Amino acid sequence: MKNSELPYAVSIQIIKEKHNQIKEIMKKIGIECWLIYARETEVNNEPVLPFIVGNDIVWDAMFIFIAKNQDFKKIAIVGNFDVTTEEKKGIWDEIYGYKEGVSSDAKATLAKYNPNKIALNYSLSDVSADGLSHGLFLKLENMLEYYKEKFVSAEKIIQFLRNVKSETELALIKKACEVTEEINRSVTSNLRPNRTEIDIQNEFHDTMANIGVIESWQKQSCPAVDAGPEKEFGHVGPTTGVTKKGHTLHNDFGIKWQRYSSDLQRMWFFGTKEEVPEELRHAFETVKGAIRKASQTIKPGMKGFEVDKIARDHVISRGYEEYAHGLGHQVGRATHDGGVLLAPLWERYGESPKGTIVKNNIFTLELYVKTKNYGWVSLEEMIVITDDGCKFIVPPIEDFIYVM
Amino acid sequence: MKNSELPYAVSIQIIKEKHNQIKEIMKKIGIECWLIYARETEVNNEPVLPFIVGNDIVWDAMFIFIAKNQDFKKIAIVGNFDVTTEEKKGIWDEIYGYKEGVSSDAKATLAKYNPNKIALNYSLSDVSADGLSHGLFLKLENMLEYYKEKFVSAEKIIQFLRNVKSETELALIKKACEVTEEINRSVTSNLRPNRTEIDIQNEFHDTMANIGVIESWQKQSCPAVDAGPEKEFGHVGPTTGVTKKGHTLHNDFGIKWQRYSSDLQRMWFFGTKEEVPEELRHAFETVKGAIRKASQTIKPGMKGFEVDKIARDHVISRGYEEYAHGLGHQVGRATHDGGVLLAPLWERYGESPKGTIVKNNIFTLELYVKTKNYGWVSLEEMIVITDDGCKFIVPPIEDFIYVM
Repeated sequence: MKNSELPYAVSIQIIKEKHNQIKEIMKKIGIECWLIYARETEVNNEPVLPFIVGNDIVWDAMFIFIAKNQDFKKIAIVGNFDVTTEEKKGIWDEIYGYKEGVSSDAKATLAKYNPNKIALNYSLSDVSADGLSHGLFLKLENMLEYYKEKFVSAEKIIQFLRNVKSETELALIKKACEVTEEINRSVTSNLRPNRTEIDIQNEFHDTMANIGVIESWQKQSCPAVDAGPEKEFGHVGPTTGVTKKGHTLHNDFGIKWQRYSSDLQRMWFFGTKEEVPEELRHAFETVKGAIRKASQTIKPGMKGFEVDKIARDHVISRGYEEYAHGLGHQVGRATHDGGVLLAPLWERYGESPKGTIVKNNIFTLELYVKTKNYGWVSLEEMIVITDDGCKFIVPPIEDFIYVM
Repeated sequence: MKNSELPYAVSIQIIKEKHNQIKEIMKKIGIECWLIYARETEVNNEPVLPFIVGNDIVWDAMFIFIAKNQDFKKIAIVGNFDVTTEEKKGIWDEIYGYKEGVSSDAKATLAKYNPNKIALNYSLSDVSADGLSHGLFLKLENMLEYYKEKFVSAEKIIQFLRNVKSETELALIKKACEVTEEINRSVTSNLRPNRTEIDIQNEFHDTMANIGVIESWQKQSCPAVDAGPEKEFGHVGPTTGVTKKGHTLHNDFGIKWQRYSSDLQRMWFFGTKEEVPEELRHAFETVKGAIRKASQTIKPGMKGFEVDKIARDHVISRGYEEYAHGLGHQVGRATHDGGVLLAPLWERYGESPKGTIVKNNIFTLELYVKTKNYGWVSLEEMIVITDDGCKFIVPPIEDFIYVM
């Protein structure tokens, strides 16, 4: 879909912004070489390539950044057929095309600069910094045996690159959120009791097609559409369950605008504000309240798990079971954009909740509580971190959306 | 685009066919456990998941196949929210949902079966068998320390799974090729001198949109459109160069039909058959001849590099410089589908050209030669390996397509 594609000129603009960020972070943390090694990225992607190269690559390729003394060099080693593509972009200081393999140009580059460390894309906790496959790691160990003691994780470089959004990126994500809300409003105007989840999801997909955008995660569960008290939320597809008077409807929905993502949850109530049962009202205010509390506290310098705890404690203090996931993830090119998570210190989150929040991170704030008689209540907002706090990217939901 | 999406029922059908293939190959090569470990596959994909699971996964997940004695067990360990999704498919013998992490269920499963070997998804040469990231490998080494001497590469399992096409897959790839030729015919009817490459590529994209299919690789170079003698072929985008009487036009084009790919190259000549210059005719017959020779020789049991050599020797014997790439790659879910390659023994192809060709592999046969005065001549066909040879998936090109 046209509006979900990233125009070439915008892609190159973002890459230039990101290359400047690479220089800044490498100097700051004192790593003199960052080496990205990838192949056939249509089959096995390298999540960092869209930010530094901007297209898939076919043959083995290396992209090397050198930040040594006053030098900052950007070097591409690519198959001979890909040289012209790289030249056209105007983003590299040196481009080498090979016929037989990357190794001789790679060794020559490292011999020339003899860097103190060589950062590679592996990370135990951060999927977006873990693009180097184990097979390619083994190839590198053979190829660059002389340097292998210098290998370190590039996760600090990648987290900075990916999670500190540039001006262009901030604008695209805001637009993605605005379009998401526009689609929510459009679908709202046709909501009524006795429509199936499947039917409602189809209307979302048709509306998206008219606007020319694709879903932010797999179509089957984007939007997730959950009607009534019996439905278990999560990434289950829509069913033949129907909307009813006195029941809620929930969605979890995002779109891609020029490849950048949104991720929001909204809730509808079939009836008037006065008809909302006390138990449901209490649950709604709890979820909304937890999100507000977290948004009022979060600021640069905090750790991810500290923010999760604010919302989690609030939910528990209001008498609910705690939500079985993290409070928030970063959003960007991917819906789940890696880096620091707002999450508890559980095994499955690894080191990610221990990371530090910085300016221009974009997070979701999302959680659910379960009621006895009215099903789940779940909301999700998106915020951008500012100098001393955060702001919502689009206005947060204040109440159910009422459908008569 | 509707027709490029894989319907859920077809996806489950293919997964069932593939699960049967897993049983067959594990028994055959004597590996008792295959363990797939993945996370956040929207950010960092695991190329084998579409064949064994069928959707992206968010949280750490393990999929374990046990083939021991008479047992064959298929086990999924997934985040608690993903249990229902897996249950619905009806493809697993055991499903475990976790809240905090995969490790305890993983250890319990391995303790129960105590397999002789544990195959993991890493490979130096085959990108499609190299989906395990280095970070996840390090996590596995910690988590399963007691078993780490048993880790072996799963590349033989994955190559069998991915490269031996099932009945459903063969039918989808054939359809993708037929639709590609249908689009080529449709665009041919509007070709004339003095149209730009950009304009022609746009017509391809519009025609695809009408049929409801997307391109098989990145849109910018799918189709590659190359007009006239000055254009350097390869993965360069279209330019403002125009078609002219007496010149050729070349494309390299594929589409996705229900996620399965095609990849074909065709050539047009602006003029009559009689007007084709001798030099160009000689080049065309050389390329076509090399493809025919390879197709007449290839059969199960041959090595990839042996087939490449047939075409390469033919080109050289006719007085041309050899093509700077391999003769053919496998095609399937991905355009470049991994596994055995028909390629020379060059560094960049690793071990892949040494693999053995088997029945129901699908390969491209593609090569170019350069002429002095009329630019490049390049063609590409697709073949499926049969019991004792191969057959073309759609009729191969016999001559230029003539445009008056």
